[in-house]
Amino acid sequence: MDDKGYMRTALQMAEATKGQTTPNPAVGAVVVKEHRVVGFGAHLRAGEAHAERHALTMAGEKAYDATIYVTLEPCSHQGRTPPCCDAIIEAGIRRVVVATMDANPKVAGNGIKKLRQAGIEVDVGVCREAAEELNQSFFHYMKTNQPYVTLKVAASIDGKIATSTGESQWITSSESRADGHVLRHQHDAILVGVNTVVADDPKLTTRLPEGGENPIRVILDHTLRTPLSAQLVTDKSAPTWIVTTKKADAHRIDEFEKNGVSVLVLKGETIEVDELLVQLSERGVTSVLVEGGGTIHDAFLRSGSFQQIVYYMAVMLIGGSHAPDAFSGMGISSLKDVPRLAVHSWEKLGSDMKMVLRKGEE
Amino acid sequence: MDDKGYMRTALQMAEATKGQTTPNPAVGAVVVKEHRVVGFGAHLRAGEAHAERHALTMAGEKAYDATIYVTLEPCSHQGRTPPCCDAIIEAGIRRVVVATMDANPKVAGNGIKKLRQAGIEVDVGVCREAAEELNQSFFHYMKTNQPYVTLKVAASIDGKIATSTGESQWITSSESRADGHVLRHQHDAILVGVNTVVADDPKLTTRLPEGGENPIRVILDHTLRTPLSAQLVTDKSAPTWIVTTKKADAHRIDEFEKNGVSVLVLKGETIEVDELLVQLSERGVTSVLVEGGGTIHDAFLRSGSFQQIVYYMAVMLIGGSHAPDAFSGMGISSLKDVPRLAVHSWEKLGSDMKMVLRKGEE
Repeated sequence: MDDKGYMRTALQMAEATKGQTTPNPAVGAVVVKEHRVVGFGAHLRAGEAHAERHALTMAGEKAYDATIYVTLEPCSHQGRTPPCCDAIIEAGIRRVVVATMDANPKVAGNGIKKLRQAGIEVDVGVCREAAEELNQSFFHYMKTNQPYVTLKVAASIDGKIATSTGESQWITSSESRADGHVLRHQHDAILVGVNTVVADDPKLTTRLPEGGENPIRVILDHTLRTPLSAQLVTDKSAPTWIVTTKKADAHRIDEFEKNGVSVLVLKGETIEVDELLVQLSERGVTSVLVEGGGTIHDAFLRSGSFQQIVYYMAVMLIGGSHAPDAFSGMGISSLKDVPRLAVHSWEKLGSDMKMVLRKGEE
Repeated sequence: MDDKGYMRTALQMAEATKGQTTPNPAVGAVVVKEHRVVGFGAHLRAGEAHAERHALTMAGEKAYDATIYVTLEPCSHQGRTPPCCDAIIEAGIRRVVVATMDANPKVAGNGIKKLRQAGIEVDVGVCREAAEELNQSFFHYMKTNQPYVTLKVAASIDGKIATSTGESQWITSSESRADGHVLRHQHDAILVGVNTVVADDPKLTTRLPEGGENPIRVILDHTLRTPLSAQLVTDKSAPTWIVTTKKADAHRIDEFEKNGVSVLVLKGETIEVDELLVQLSERGVTSVLVEGGGTIHDAFLRSGSFQQIVYYMAVMLIGGSHAPDAFSGMGISSLKDVPRLAVHSWEKLGSDMKMVLRKGEE
């Protein structure tokens, strides 16, 4: 195996931990000596050891004079755990191969500098693109201090999310629905409008065969219409936050708080997406999965406040001008204002097609 | 080159003539002797020589003891031209390689039988699938006596054909629009609703760099609201047929007829898609390209009266519940009634995605 092969192994390990390390990124590491792997490691949970630590522990004395492959620049500062650079230097590592620099522009390069000052050979950029893709929401959050926003859509080819009589179970295949639960696992928060809560009384939990991390459940509800009997209020399976406005009744806010639900009151009489994202960011939310319905999706589309759209497209045509649309609010009135999107990836998923759309790419 | 290679050459020649041979199929032929091509031929226009004739003419005396590759079973009956089987036998051809049998179930196999009776070796089925795909609308018409119906859609990912303010130029790319003109060239008739005529005053002609065959222009107009000043009435660039109902005013029908426009009056007070297709079939229309608008597309979708959908999807999201839908009538109210579709092909076309959807495939 060559540098790329070992780095791909480290990336694959990190990929497997995606969703369980937040607010930290997913990171993998492999220690190699004389063309034999002597240590594997990945960061498993925030507050616990970093990937390099695990890999060096497994390698033990064999780490001396070895090469370590790590998907993200080793940290040089004291955080909740001691700096990885120190551990690498102490272990006697000869060469460090790094896929991509630290996501925080303020400290990027410091770890590499410290390692080189200790006489260690450092190569940067092996599988850089894949490493950035792996932690794209973390990178986005570190650079912008805004959560990474994914809009999840499940619709027919003609953009309908239900028939004119409201039938929507199921338009997409079971494979797509399972994939949607992986998205929940990989995001810090899930966001829906109060109409969805009233209509469907959803749980919004992650239901994968082996469980999964439940995201924080965020309801947009500018007049606080969420029923106190809603599962999101009563089931305690994950934190629930209701985002409302000054139109909300103070007494009702108290009732929610008594039930363990946090109520965030925004400044105006309507919920502005920008203000919402600032509030979520301040509470440590690095990524948000917006599951709709159509009016919420439309608001994010119009404000341009999203980074990617995961679009599950069922190979069917439903038709009907009154059948609900995936983006059903005011829409964008002029073609010049339509955001430029690119198909980042495309695959067949069960009987559906899964498209990942990103902004601003060509 | 082997059998498949020569047959692919014949198919490619036929493909190049697609749209110019109606109501006949596109057919190509190659004559090969001692591994050298000695004749190329294709059917160029209904009433003129068949592919085999052209190829045999080019081969001349070299056709003796040669092999002829032909994409469709040679005809054994006297039509507007003499039977090709006779010409093949007279030329002294030793072997005939056929891609697919005659499309007419009543005569399929007769040509092959006649050739074998004359002592000629006949192989059938080389590149059969590609040959059937090439003339799928012809095969459909021969088997069902109904025109092959293609719905052409140009929409955003979320199924919108214009913004809420009616802006629609251009959602799809110039490459998709040019491809749409190839579809016009390849269909006998093009069909739109009167709303499209009133709103856009279209020409519905084929505008490719090298021209192209103009389809018969069919307007669905149950109360005869088409303006006498519409380009479709005045420009004479192709036949125009208006399909109407007994609600239509007799005097107004006369006015259209005086302008050279044919008016087809259906039995009821509304236009039923099934009756419409029977009428078109009786007038020799083997294929129809339905260009919309949304209400017309929706009517064809609901009636199930289509064979394929060519869907040009612009990588954009427009949103808005009042922005016009690609399928904008009543729609299909129950998911169990939604026609089963399969993605027959999929390609990137300019900045768009082009999907060909077919019914009843898996």
